[in-house]
Amino acid sequence: MSNTTRQPGRHFLQIPGPTPVPERIIQAMARTIIDHRSQAFADLSLRVINGIKTIFKTKQPVILYPSSGTGAWEAALVNTLSPGDKVLMVETGQFATLWKDMAAKIGLVPEFLPTDWRTGAEADAIESALKRDTAHEIKAVCVVHNETATGCRSWIQDIRKAMDAAGHPALLMVDTISSLGCLDYRHDEWGVDVSISGSQKGLMLPPGLSFTAVSEKALEAAKSASLQRSYWSWQDMIASNASGFFPFTPATGLLYGLETAITMLHEEGLDNVFARHERHGRATRAAVETWGLEVLCRDPKYYSPAVTSVLMPEGYNADTFRALVLENFNMSLGTGLNRLSGKVFRIGHLGDTNDLTIMGALSGVEMGLELAGVPHAKGGVTAAMAEITRATNQVRAAA
Amino acid sequence: MSNTTRQPGRHFLQIPGPTPVPERIIQAMARTIIDHRSQAFADLSLRVINGIKTIFKTKQPVILYPSSGTGAWEAALVNTLSPGDKVLMVETGQFATLWKDMAAKIGLVPEFLPTDWRTGAEADAIESALKRDTAHEIKAVCVVHNETATGCRSWIQDIRKAMDAAGHPALLMVDTISSLGCLDYRHDEWGVDVSISGSQKGLMLPPGLSFTAVSEKALEAAKSASLQRSYWSWQDMIASNASGFFPFTPATGLLYGLETAITMLHEEGLDNVFARHERHGRATRAAVETWGLEVLCRDPKYYSPAVTSVLMPEGYNADTFRALVLENFNMSLGTGLNRLSGKVFRIGHLGDTNDLTIMGALSGVEMGLELAGVPHAKGGVTAAMAEITRATNQVRAAA
Amino acid sequence: MSNTTRQPGRHFLQIPGPTPVPERIIQAMARTIIDHRSQAFADLSLRVINGIKTIFKTKQPVILYPSSGTGAWEAALVNTLSPGDKVLMVETGQFATLWKDMAAKIGLVPEFLPTDWRTGAEADAIESALKRDTAHEIKAVCVVHNETATGCRSWIQDIRKAMDAAGHPALLMVDTISSLGCLDYRHDEWGVDVSISGSQKGLMLPPGLSFTAVSEKALEAAKSASLQRSYWSWQDMIASNASGFFPFTPATGLLYGLETAITMLHEEGLDNVFARHERHGRATRAAVETWGLEVLCRDPKYYSPAVTSVLMPEGYNADTFRALVLENFNMSLGTGLNRLSGKVFRIGHLGDTNDLTIMGALSGVEMGLELAGVPHAKGGVTAAMAEITRATNQVRAAA
Amino acid sequence: MSNTTRQPGRHFLQIPGPTPVPERIIQAMARTIIDHRSQAFADLSLRVINGIKTIFKTKQPVILYPSSGTGAWEAALVNTLSPGDKVLMVETGQFATLWKDMAAKIGLVPEFLPTDWRTGAEADAIESALKRDTAHEIKAVCVVHNETATGCRSWIQDIRKAMDAAGHPALLMVDTISSLGCLDYRHDEWGVDVSISGSQKGLMLPPGLSFTAVSEKALEAAKSASLQRSYWSWQDMIASNASGFFPFTPATGLLYGLETAITMLHEEGLDNVFARHERHGRATRAAVETWGLEVLCRDPKYYSPAVTSVLMPEGYNADTFRALVLENFNMSLGTGLNRLSGKVFRIGHLGDTNDLTIMGALSGVEMGLELAGVPHAKGGVTAAMAEITRATNQVRAAA
Repeated sequence: MSNTTRQPGRHFLQIPGPTPVPERIIQAMARTIIDHRSQAFADLSLRVINGIKTIFKTKQPVILYPSSGTGAWEAALVNTLSPGDKVLMVETGQFATLWKDMAAKIGLVPEFLPTDWRTGAEADAIESALKRDTAHEIKAVCVVHNETATGCRSWIQDIRKAMDAAGHPALLMVDTISSLGCLDYRHDEWGVDVSISGSQKGLMLPPGLSFTAVSEKALEAAKSASLQRSYWSWQDMIASNASGFFPFTPATGLLYGLETAITMLHEEGLDNVFARHERHGRATRAAVETWGLEVLCRDPKYYSPAVTSVLMPEGYNADTFRALVLENFNMSLGTGLNRLSGKVFRIGHLGDTNDLTIMGALSGVEMGLELAGVPHAKGGVTAAMAEITRATNQVRAAA
Repeated sequence: MSNTTRQPGRHFLQIPGPTPVPERIIQAMARTIIDHRSQAFADLSLRVINGIKTIFKTKQPVILYPSSGTGAWEAALVNTLSPGDKVLMVETGQFATLWKDMAAKIGLVPEFLPTDWRTGAEADAIESALKRDTAHEIKAVCVVHNETATGCRSWIQDIRKAMDAAGHPALLMVDTISSLGCLDYRHDEWGVDVSISGSQKGLMLPPGLSFTAVSEKALEAAKSASLQRSYWSWQDMIASNASGFFPFTPATGLLYGLETAITMLHEEGLDNVFARHERHGRATRAAVETWGLEVLCRDPKYYSPAVTSVLMPEGYNADTFRALVLENFNMSLGTGLNRLSGKVFRIGHLGDTNDLTIMGALSGVEMGLELAGVPHAKGGVTAAMAEITRATNQVRAAA
Repeated sequence: MSNTTRQPGRHFLQIPGPTPVPERIIQAMARTIIDHRSQAFADLSLRVINGIKTIFKTKQPVILYPSSGTGAWEAALVNTLSPGDKVLMVETGQFATLWKDMAAKIGLVPEFLPTDWRTGAEADAIESALKRDTAHEIKAVCVVHNETATGCRSWIQDIRKAMDAAGHPALLMVDTISSLGCLDYRHDEWGVDVSISGSQKGLMLPPGLSFTAVSEKALEAAKSASLQRSYWSWQDMIASNASGFFPFTPATGLLYGLETAITMLHEEGLDNVFARHERHGRATRAAVETWGLEVLCRDPKYYSPAVTSVLMPEGYNADTFRALVLENFNMSLGTGLNRLSGKVFRIGHLGDTNDLTIMGALSGVEMGLELAGVPHAKGGVTAAMAEITRATNQVRAAA
Repeated sequence: MSNTTRQPGRHFLQIPGPTPVPERIIQAMARTIIDHRSQAFADLSLRVINGIKTIFKTKQPVILYPSSGTGAWEAALVNTLSPGDKVLMVETGQFATLWKDMAAKIGLVPEFLPTDWRTGAEADAIESALKRDTAHEIKAVCVVHNETATGCRSWIQDIRKAMDAAGHPALLMVDTISSLGCLDYRHDEWGVDVSISGSQKGLMLPPGLSFTAVSEKALEAAKSASLQRSYWSWQDMIASNASGFFPFTPATGLLYGLETAITMLHEEGLDNVFARHERHGRATRAAVETWGLEVLCRDPKYYSPAVTSVLMPEGYNADTFRALVLENFNMSLGTGLNRLSGKVFRIGHLGDTNDLTIMGALSGVEMGLELAGVPHAKGGVTAAMAEITRATNQVRAAA
């Protein structure tokens, strides 16, 4: 089976996003594009805008850009801050680092709380930093809810509490790109000011659409924020959105898909969706531990239900392993990013997936370890099955 | 997870056909229907007719009906035989039985060699029956290549030899509905007169199209055969097909799909396709045996590379088990047919599938056995992985 | 613009079937195939079987074969008749002729009432023929509701009256292949015994599925009918259908599409669908008459709302003209069949189409006549627009 | 036919973009999303990046953003300019005005040459303005190639000459959003520095992807430009693109579609594509003039081959007319924007369309005028057919 022969069957896309796009969403997106200045379009966009609010659990505005999630990062900063403003960020991994780099690039002054890329953002560290900032020069705290690069989640409700405990007025901004639609998220209840997300993870769409939930406090900040903005201007968006339109051509196909995605999430039930991601995270880690490999995230408190990064044993290259798995088993695993390059591979278990797909994926990893000659104990897949069976029995008992 | 909540992810369609339709074929079939009296259509149908010959490994005519495979069974009989003609058939299972019932219904006189539905057609038994028929009243020997109901294959080349050894002039007719595109098949080399197949198994299409490869000897027989026929008339078909047309409206969408299916089989390589089915059959049986369950097919010689029927332990209903698996793991397993109802479930491992999908499916069976409280030993999935790893290593060593 | 350059935009498929498959149906058909032995499948098929009854306007059984409409012709004859039975048929055109040929081929004795292929079946002629048959040797009267080859409709309610007036007990069988879903049709009210149809015309599906509505009287006849049948046996079908299953593998993809087609017809409203076809028939004939060309159907009583056959002026070949239109305007027109070959072209105005598509098509004909140098008067398209405007105004006034 | 009954047939999407997405592109976009960090992805993006260069007719970098065209406008400005820089823009219509507003918003100083929104950008006026700017304070000349709001094109090669004649070093930036893939465009030959475009017009894709072709001079300017930028940074893009990757998640689905779009344009032949748009523009204007209505563009030199804006007669509201056409004929016409609101409707004749679709559309306008009681002369559609016939004969004569 070389690269040149056709790989039969469905590709196992086990990267932490983009995730597999379900048939219903593919079909929704394939519908004829309509006039984006028509009433039918306005009806669609109002349904979609209201729908996405139920996923963020917010009653406040949500803005949709034709852009990657990176664009929504930029929008969050340029709409609320002014040149020279300080922002407090936590180095949870590569995506937190990229966001910090962006902040610096556009003229902000990030304070970057370090971690070893094996944990989530710690509320205590944030509280301390904020308490040190007696002058309230820090204008925003920026945290990645689920670090896609490491498989470590952070606890936003704890960070909120830390900010409150510090009595600090900074805005709270959260990247939920690989968590929204995977882990429980509550924009309003947790007092988040700006929640940023993207289409291609828990929302099960192709990439190309970003979402931003915005609090009243953030909108208030936008009035005096002086960073340059035009495409990313929330004000223009919110004004147009009121009647179901957009200040520039919207990505109608993705809006079609988003409407279906929201429907699907509610049909399954958000709590069932979150339980499914939890179950797959636990099953995956049970396999990894049984193999005798190390989960990158070193503290169970921060384990991600959406993605698991696995450390390769010393002397083995993770990308060589990934290539072998792709070649032989038609499965894409996530690569290690930046300082983790070659050292970890990532197993995505998020988006529209199910128990047997995850079991197929874990089987591919176990067989790949064997083919690659990576030292490991057998039984990972069996351990994962035990975890899924246990969780299923629990649900059946409760029903 | 009740029936009313959405089942996330891809359905595992592990019945022995219809099989999952690959994305490329779905797309080919979705193309705009063209005028079936145009040159563009004639070009298409000539490509398809010539293409399907390469799958049957024949240079003789292949006929395509808009019908299920059952229609092609009927066509085989009514084009070559006359009322009262004797046919020798082998009771390999439910499908052989249905074909026999059809023969009787349309006025033929079937001799039905019995089996216990746990083996393939035995060449010796056929040779004996033919030798007994010194008057050559038997006009056709009809065999099912791969009994979808039992998971037992027959060896057509051995049956050909038996017929030759008996010096018997009967036609040889073979049902390849669940074998074509899964197991090696050689219409010309094996001296088969009529080979019957369908679109929804190894050919990876939805149901609705049947194929019939016809030898010169069969065409000669058609000249004097007097069973009533019109829709099924080979003669009209072959005459129209010469210029790329059909005597009645063809199923253009399925022809689009068939062209792509043939291309895909050759891109993978027929030998690779057959090896893949063999590997999945071996992996599945390794799992079943490890669980301590019994494979219905009792002689390894007849194991099917396309489908495995598994006997439920006494006291457990196979359909109850199947329902539990469908409910909890979004997987369809095949039901037991006729005398096997409730006693076996069938695992389809044919068509456009791959190692990790099969591993997901076997995981679903192993977890289902646990949830259902069916006595079994653990380790089936692990044994299947060992089998796949072994086969993969073999291929890698050879490359 | 030669054949080798890509033709941009949508193809105008203006043949009298297959008709353009709407996006919604394409998407319905692209859904994952499910286990045809599952409850979910049974639920689907019961919905579809009950749904198609509303299109035939019948409460009696409707049978679905994976076959072209030709198969349903055969089923109608072999289920109800015995070798040597007389059938009265009317030579309305090529399709009536093919059905007559089939009857003869399978051992029936057709009496074929001639026409000049420019009119529908005349009730008087049928009444006379039946009155002559005092011995009631005629067992069935077979009529094509809408002759696709000529664009002449017949009036089934008049034929029913003629049969009643003749006091003749023959069965009434009607081919509605190109009328169902285009013209009003009432299987029960009109006392039809067997109504035959296909998927690829007014039902807007690809070809490959046929429908047969069957009266109690026809089912009664089936009990004593002795023509050979197996695949086409109504009895087996009706028995299986009761629980939502089929005696052989159904064409699941087409059933998916059929469910959507039925929904679409009712969403538009059957009466609106029929009015639309009437309007397009009138608009097309208005254009043809303005061009000074002759509509093949020579009596307005029999004008078809689904297809218009146009006589080419002496000295001009219709197929040459069709080729020029295809080459230059990306439109397929229907060819003349049999004795009409080269003499007529056919404009299909049936299935999922609308006013502007028909106007585009008629524009293509008018421009084609100009490019081909066919003598004609200008203004056909303008006349067609007047007809559509008139009809639209009428609807708006009524609303 | 009210809004609540289903509108049968295909929608006529005759707005000046988004344009109808062809079946092949829909299918390409529906393919499974792949890992955007894989070699297969890199291969795809290199093919696409090189392919889009052939449409811009450039050998210089082209940048693809997941964004609307508006995003590429912003990128053009922020990558090349510094706060307070002067830019010379021409008020050709609503889109030129929006671009000017954006420039002002981000801190540039636009000089806005006025027009009456009924003409293209005049090279003389630009030359004069540049000659006045002896201090070379103007850093960029920004022109819209085809004003989507008015249906007036500008002649970029003339503007280039004017800039050269003025000996002015400003950058030349051109919005080709509704011209690329419709009108001939030559980024390199015409000496354009930044060419901006979008996916949803001549490129036949859904909205959501923008393109920017960049000259060496523009890249040089980027080195000293100090406007804030991060998402829009060309530098980061070009660096990543070199190996086929992107600095943030790309819109893989749209890249799939773009590859097919480029293939389709070349299969038809760019010159054939341009001739087709010219032909449809001429046919549309022939109809409008025959109806006695006024084309908004008052100088034939500036007629757009992609869109025609039509002035409603005094006392008639264009949007009321558009609503009537949508309701009765299932066709969307473009609305009048800003100062043209209610006064014009726009007929899009761009993207993947053909002669008969345009004829259907013009028939819908002619019938709509009748239904709406708008005073007009008959014969517009006939005049359009004459224009198309003439052009087709010319091509046939040349072949």
